[in-house]
Amino acid sequence: MNLLLLEPEEIDAYGEATVTGTRAKHLIDVLGVQPGQSVRAGIVDGGVGRADVRAVEAGRVRLALRVGEPPEPPPLDLLLAVPRPKVLKRLWAPIASLGVGRVWLTNAEKVERFYFDSHAVRPETYRPRLLEGLAQARDTRVPVVEVHKSLKALVEDRIEPLDARRVLADPEFDRGAYETVAGTSPGRRVILALGPEGGWSAYERDLFLRHGFVGVGMGPRVLRLDTAVVALLSLAHEALRSR
Amino acid sequence: MNLLLLEPEEIDAYGEATVTGTRAKHLIDVLGVQPGQSVRAGIVDGGVGRADVRAVEAGRVRLALRVGEPPEPPPLDLLLAVPRPKVLKRLWAPIASLGVGRVWLTNAEKVERFYFDSHAVRPETYRPRLLEGLAQARDTRVPVVEVHKSLKALVEDRIEPLDARRVLADPEFDRGAYETVAGTSPGRRVILALGPEGGWSAYERDLFLRHGFVGVGMGPRVLRLDTAVVALLSLAHEALRSR
Repeated sequence: MNLLLLEPEEIDAYGEATVTGTRAKHLIDVLGVQPGQSVRAGIVDGGVGRADVRAVEAGRVRLALRVGEPPEPPPLDLLLAVPRPKVLKRLWAPIASLGVGRVWLTNAEKVERFYFDSHAVRPETYRPRLLEGLAQARDTRVPVVEVHKSLKALVEDRIEPLDARRVLADPEFDRGAYETVAGTSPGRRVILALGPEGGWSAYERDLFLRHGFVGVGMGPRVLRLDTAVVALLSLAHEALRSR
Repeated sequence: MNLLLLEPEEIDAYGEATVTGTRAKHLIDVLGVQPGQSVRAGIVDGGVGRADVRAVEAGRVRLALRVGEPPEPPPLDLLLAVPRPKVLKRLWAPIASLGVGRVWLTNAEKVERFYFDSHAVRPETYRPRLLEGLAQARDTRVPVVEVHKSLKALVEDRIEPLDARRVLADPEFDRGAYETVAGTSPGRRVILALGPEGGWSAYERDLFLRHGFVGVGMGPRVLRLDTAVVALLSLAHEALRSR
């Protein structure tokens, strides 16, 4: 935990909060905080700054917050064919730590229908994991998650009106993801679409290309989906920093 | 399993082999192979090609191999401060799938001594995981693993004589990893050094810099070590492909 994250409703009218549970345990047992010290802190979807420790007692820490402006949301969104539930559960924290404004989870030909009924696509599963990733990366901006059962409707109705550079990752393409993202105008958002294990179908690739997506590959090696997500987001973020 | 990997000693004088256990189970239960079909196959540290299925019986598959030249080893080596055992165990497969010629595991000020006694640094733990990552990526070249208890000796005696571009990843630096690796001469090997959670110490950074390493950063977000390893290797591989 590199940032203590507090929900806005935990903070009282005096800008103070009492934390219990795992956060208090981390502050007491790992960081060994004492009254008078301060720790990095932030408010979920709000500012980042410090929290002054006012009191420490069995399993509870009382804090006073001093936070500044919220960080800018990452200029990057991820469109992802719903992975297997076990893989998706593991992906929420790294996705949030790498930084994504929005996650569109979508159906695809190679996505099993039962994935949509799994715990991994529910807020009670993904929200704590997203917060864990944000705390790791010292960010407060929770990625917005949308689940879409029709890729066609998502691309035609939801993505089509957006002003963003659209990038489709698929082994069919040779063009580099880094160079493609680095070549976009500063300030312009980038949407990255990544397919299921086994790739997008020809119909799906065509749908993306007809809606302004440019295809990129990630080399000849076949990566597991969780590795590919981290690889693609890292490449895109470093390319965005180079703009 | 995108490639069936066989150890050289499994193959008889006629170029045939019988597999049992998890590989046979995968061939029979997942791929549903029948005599007359063939699957992608490779020999550990040897060639890649196909295996013709000769016979399938309870838990056993008899195969005849037709393989070509071994793939080139990746032009990239990784110097890594020994991670926590649990994290290291998870990292072996992705490291092999992304592609690394050699892994130097090293001590560092922020590495706990007991990490060196853990199962995660032993061949019986890492070798099957490396093979799993290679099978995923359709490679046969097993990364060579060396464990060093002195970073100073490793850098001064082992790394110093090598003709390779040396890159040190650390939050202290701003320079991009992609641009740095992309700027190396084609064919030249690249060594990437990545520190423990909490980073290299000032002494360690200085040791690397005195031995020709150039410092790069990976942006302002603090990543978990397993995410950082995948991020750095992905950036370096895409940069190597752009040379």
